[in-house]
Amino acid sequence: MKLATLRRGGRDGRLAVVSRDLKRCVLVPGIAPTLQAALDDWAALAPRLAERAAALEMGGGQADVMPFDAAQCAAPLPRAYHWVDGSAYVNHVELVRKARGADMPASFWTDPLVYQGGSDDLLGARDEVPFGDEAWGIDLEAEIAVITDDVPMGTGVAAAGAHVKLLTLANDWSLRNLIPGELAKGFGFYQSKPATAFAPVAVTPDELGTAWRGHKVHLPLVSRINGADFGRPDAGTDMTFDFAQLIAHVTKTRRLGAGAIVGSGTVSNYDRSRGASCLAEKRTLEQIESGSPRTPFLRFGDRVEIEMLGADGGNIFGTLDNRVTRAAS
Amino acid sequence: MKLATLRRGGRDGRLAVVSRDLKRCVLVPGIAPTLQAALDDWAALAPRLAERAAALEMGGGQADVMPFDAAQCAAPLPRAYHWVDGSAYVNHVELVRKARGADMPASFWTDPLVYQGGSDDLLGARDEVPFGDEAWGIDLEAEIAVITDDVPMGTGVAAAGAHVKLLTLANDWSLRNLIPGELAKGFGFYQSKPATAFAPVAVTPDELGTAWRGHKVHLPLVSRINGADFGRPDAGTDMTFDFAQLIAHVTKTRRLGAGAIVGSGTVSNYDRSRGASCLAEKRTLEQIESGSPRTPFLRFGDRVEIEMLGADGGNIFGTLDNRVTRAAS
Repeated sequence: MKLATLRRGGRDGRLAVVSRDLKRCVLVPGIAPTLQAALDDWAALAPRLAERAAALEMGGGQADVMPFDAAQCAAPLPRAYHWVDGSAYVNHVELVRKARGADMPASFWTDPLVYQGGSDDLLGARDEVPFGDEAWGIDLEAEIAVITDDVPMGTGVAAAGAHVKLLTLANDWSLRNLIPGELAKGFGFYQSKPATAFAPVAVTPDELGTAWRGHKVHLPLVSRINGADFGRPDAGTDMTFDFAQLIAHVTKTRRLGAGAIVGSGTVSNYDRSRGASCLAEKRTLEQIESGSPRTPFLRFGDRVEIEMLGADGGNIFGTLDNRVTRAAS
Repeated sequence: MKLATLRRGGRDGRLAVVSRDLKRCVLVPGIAPTLQAALDDWAALAPRLAERAAALEMGGGQADVMPFDAAQCAAPLPRAYHWVDGSAYVNHVELVRKARGADMPASFWTDPLVYQGGSDDLLGARDEVPFGDEAWGIDLEAEIAVITDDVPMGTGVAAAGAHVKLLTLANDWSLRNLIPGELAKGFGFYQSKPATAFAPVAVTPDELGTAWRGHKVHLPLVSRINGADFGRPDAGTDMTFDFAQLIAHVTKTRRLGAGAIVGSGTVSNYDRSRGASCLAEKRTLEQIESGSPRTPFLRFGDRVEIEMLGADGGNIFGTLDNRVTRAAS
C-alpha cells in the first residue's frame, strides 16, 4: 500500500491511503489519524490500512475518495522521533576523500558510517527550502529512506530487515561549505545538515515487488536540476551496507522507536555514466579530471526533482520537487 | 510551575502538574493530554497550566489530587522530536583533550560544539539503564537541559532566551570506549551515545527565581555514585555558552520545533574541589596527576543519582536515580 500525510489537522497532518497510480486518496481517521499513530500500533493497524488500500484500488464510488495532490502533502512524517542517515554507498565516500587527497580507512568497507539528522522539521515534497546564504554551498543528496517499527537494542542483521515497514525517498540537503569547519570540531554535522525533504508518499516493501530484495531497492533513483537530467544511479548497485545492516548497526547500543527513519546516504554508482545524486560528487569528478570543479552549488531559485520509477514506468513515491529560496531575514 | 509525565495512557504518558514540594500532583487532561501537546500550543495552554499549578499550591481537598511518585514518571518528554546537546563548559573539553595530548583550537571558546542525540527513547528518572558490555566504558554525564517552543531559523542571541520554556536535568550516558573509534570516522557520535535519562520534573524558569539569570542556572548540580558524593559543580560558573547562545547556534541553518531539548553538556568547574559530572573528567585529572586513571567506569549494578537543590534546600527537579544493568541478550 501507499500512504501519505495531507497538510491538515495540525502539525502531524492527516494520514491518507493513496492509490497505486497516485491519482486518488482517502483519509482514514477511523483507523489512524496520523502516520505516527499507525506506526505506533503497526501490527494491528497495517492490515486494516491494507484493506482500505485494496478497496481503493477496486475503485467504486466511495464518497470519501479524493483526487491525490502531491502539493497538499507534508512529509510522510512531518516530524519524527529519530532520523539517522547512513553513508552506505562507500564508493561515494572514497571518491570525495580522494578529491581532497585523503585516504579512506579500510574499516569503512565493514563498519557503517551514520549521522543523526534533525527530525523535528521534515519538509514536504513541494516545500520551498529556505537557506540563509548561497555561499554555504547548497547541495542536494538524493537517497532512499526506510521507516521502522520498534526495533530492540542488539537486533542482529538477520532480524533487522523485518523491521522495515515503509520506504520513501529523501533529499538530505547539505551545506557543503559549512562541513569542513564543522567536522574539524570532531562532533559531526549539525549546522551543515539543515531540514531534510521527503517524497509525497511512503510505500510498504511489497509495492516494490522484486525490486526490493536483499534489503536494497534495485531501481534507478532519478534526479533533475532545473528540469535537466542530473543522475539516475541504481540504488541496488554498489550499496555496501543494506538496510538490515544499517539497522543492526544503529541498534547496537540503543533501541529504535516506532517511526524511526533510516537513510541510505547519497546513492552513487561506480558507473559514472549514471550521473550522481549530489553536486559534491560531480564536482569531485570534475576536480579529479581537470583540476577544479566546474559545476556550481545550488542557487536561490533552483529547482531539484527526485523520483523513482518502477519496472512498469509508474512513479512509485511521487516526485520531490523543491525550490531553493532565500530565507527571510 | 512544575510538570511531569506519568507513565500511563500510551507511549507519551500523561501530563501532570506537580506541587513545588514534589509531594502532590494532578493530571490535566482538560488542558493537555501530554507535555508535547502542551508545548505545541504553549502560549495558549501555559497560562491555564499555571492556574492549575497555583490552585494545587493552595491545597484544598480536590478529589483529583494524587501523591506524586517519581517512580511513576517517564521522562518529561518520553520521546521528543529534537535533542541537541552542547558542550558549553569548555574547560571540560580542554581538560579531556589535554589528557590525550591534543591542543584545543582557540575557536572552541567562541564557536559552540553540539551534537545531536537520539530522541525516540528518553529514559525516566528511575529506569534501569541497560548496556550490552561493561567494556564499552559506561559513564554518566550530569547536565542541565532546556525545552523550547518553536524557534525560527536565524534566531539571534538576543531573541533566543525567550524560547526557553522549561528546564530539567539529564544524564547523557556515554560509552567512552566506543568514542575514539567513532569520532575517528569523522561523522560524530552515534553508538557511543545511547539513550539519555531525564529528571522526573521539568520546571518553568520562574521556579528558579534569581538562580536563573543570564540564561544560566546558578546552582550546584549534585551527582552521587552508589550513594557517595561525586560532584557538585555550579552550573552557572564556567559555562562558556549560555542557553541563548546555544539556541542561536543551533538555529543558524534550521528552525527548532516545539519541544526541542537543548542540553548544556557535562557541567564542569575549574575549581576541582567541586568534583566532576562525569567519570571521564575525574579519570583525566587522575591521569594528569599520576600518569594513569584510577577510577573505573560504571559497572552493572551501579547506581547514579543526579539532583539540584534550590537556595531553600528544596529539590527542584526531583532526583534521577538510575541503575546500570546488563542488557538482555
